[in-house]
Amino acid sequence: MSTPHVFDTAIALQPQGDGVFAGSTSPAYANMIGPFGGITAAQVLNAVLLHPDRLGDPIALTINFAGPVADGPFTIRPRAARTNRSTQHWTVELLQGDEVLVTATVFTAVRRDTWTGDESQMPDVPRAPEVPVTPRHGVEWLRRYEMRFLEGSIPAKWDGAVRDESLSRMWVRDHPPRPLDYPSLTALSDVFFPRIWLRRATFVPIGTVSMTVYYHADAAQLAAAGTSHLLIQAQGQGFGGGYFDHAGQLWDEQGTLLATTHQLVYYKE
Amino acid sequence: MSTPHVFDTAIALQPQGDGVFAGSTSPAYANMIGPFGGITAAQVLNAVLLHPDRLGDPIALTINFAGPVADGPFTIRPRAARTNRSTQHWTVELLQGDEVLVTATVFTAVRRDTWTGDESQMPDVPRAPEVPVTPRHGVEWLRRYEMRFLEGSIPAKWDGAVRDESLSRMWVRDHPPRPLDYPSLTALSDVFFPRIWLRRATFVPIGTVSMTVYYHADAAQLAAAGTSHLLIQAQGQGFGGGYFDHAGQLWDEQGTLLATTHQLVYYKE
Repeated sequence: MSTPHVFDTAIALQPQGDGVFAGSTSPAYANMIGPFGGITAAQVLNAVLLHPDRLGDPIALTINFAGPVADGPFTIRPRAARTNRSTQHWTVELLQGDEVLVTATVFTAVRRDTWTGDESQMPDVPRAPEVPVTPRHGVEWLRRYEMRFLEGSIPAKWDGAVRDESLSRMWVRDHPPRPLDYPSLTALSDVFFPRIWLRRATFVPIGTVSMTVYYHADAAQLAAAGTSHLLIQAQGQGFGGGYFDHAGQLWDEQGTLLATTHQLVYYKE
Repeated sequence: MSTPHVFDTAIALQPQGDGVFAGSTSPAYANMIGPFGGITAAQVLNAVLLHPDRLGDPIALTINFAGPVADGPFTIRPRAARTNRSTQHWTVELLQGDEVLVTATVFTAVRRDTWTGDESQMPDVPRAPEVPVTPRHGVEWLRRYEMRFLEGSIPAKWDGAVRDESLSRMWVRDHPPRPLDYPSLTALSDVFFPRIWLRRATFVPIGTVSMTVYYHADAAQLAAAGTSHLLIQAQGQGFGGGYFDHAGQLWDEQGTLLATTHQLVYYKE
């Protein structure tokens, strides 16, 4: 018997009956305080995927980080608010005790063959093996990813120099490599360090408030991506009043757009 | 007594007690079938704004169109899933009878003075008065907006010619003019005709599944915008398997970024 991948262990959930699932934060994906938001998002999606009533594959997910998830056990309660012939709308809550710490909505559907034509094109960049692995420092969850920055790496100097742009672009995959699926694609949508750090070269406290992922990859495209690197990028849009947002894209090595994502982030000062 | 603006009449809600609100679809904002999604989003947001427990201003909204809203009355049920010191997470449902037709999450917060520096810059375009008003055809809700297209107007010929890009850019405001507020900014985030029509010059059936709005404007910025035109744009990202998404931005006449928005849209064929 092979040892399960650390990601699979982290997102494992135990059905409690009545469509409730029990899980636990994973020390392997610890952030500065509490868990990496991407692993929480993957756990929330996994609860929907494991639900016996689930119809189709994930198409859209929005997760709201409402309060600090403490290290330890939690429950996830997915509920099918509406089921149509080939689509389904889920609302999900993650709780510790009686406290709601996460709210989410997930849209699943049976995909159909239609006209296809991605508009967001993968930029022309060196292939992953030609780009050196960026050394990982800091929080534990970063060690679960192999990142190869092409542009917009974390500031080398925290000297407060303001930049007009905050585009980050990198090759990334799970470390150790793991075949891509919807939960891991979800977690990969949240690996971007906060754009405000890049704009300001200042280490201000931050926290993701809301993240949305639109899944463009079908099961065959996920299987084709396998354990290869994804090219991912994100860029900030608006910054003010304590919140900024970014928009991002994720492609496989062949340039297929697998997902788009955006998030709203709190920052102090 | 002055007659209320048609938009105010459309988003009016009657509190039913227990935090439930009653409303009705508005013939003035009718779409091909059922209401314009933007007016539904404005009604959902308005239910949160009217709730006596509401804390702060809207920062993020995600609305999921789960089923067809029929012409007539509905109820909206906002619930504060979590209230922190200066932030609040709402989950909302819109129902007709027992049927859930909309799910939504709304994040509100008290804004603070922080570093500000918008990254999404308004493009260099002619001022609104220099751009002719685009003639409005078709569905009723379009008559509630004054649109002045700069780029990416609805195809003049439905000849099936495929385009690589689907950027639309226009000046827009309520018609008749109305001072901007969070509900109208929400509705304005949904006035883009579907990007798939622009890409393919083919009239395929569509329906928005999910829309997110991040509000960057505070109350003072909304007041400053007043009844002036907004410059808004949207561009498609991924198209395939029956769904596409777009990303958009809304600026006031002075180039202040008021909101960013994304949506996922179903299409047939």
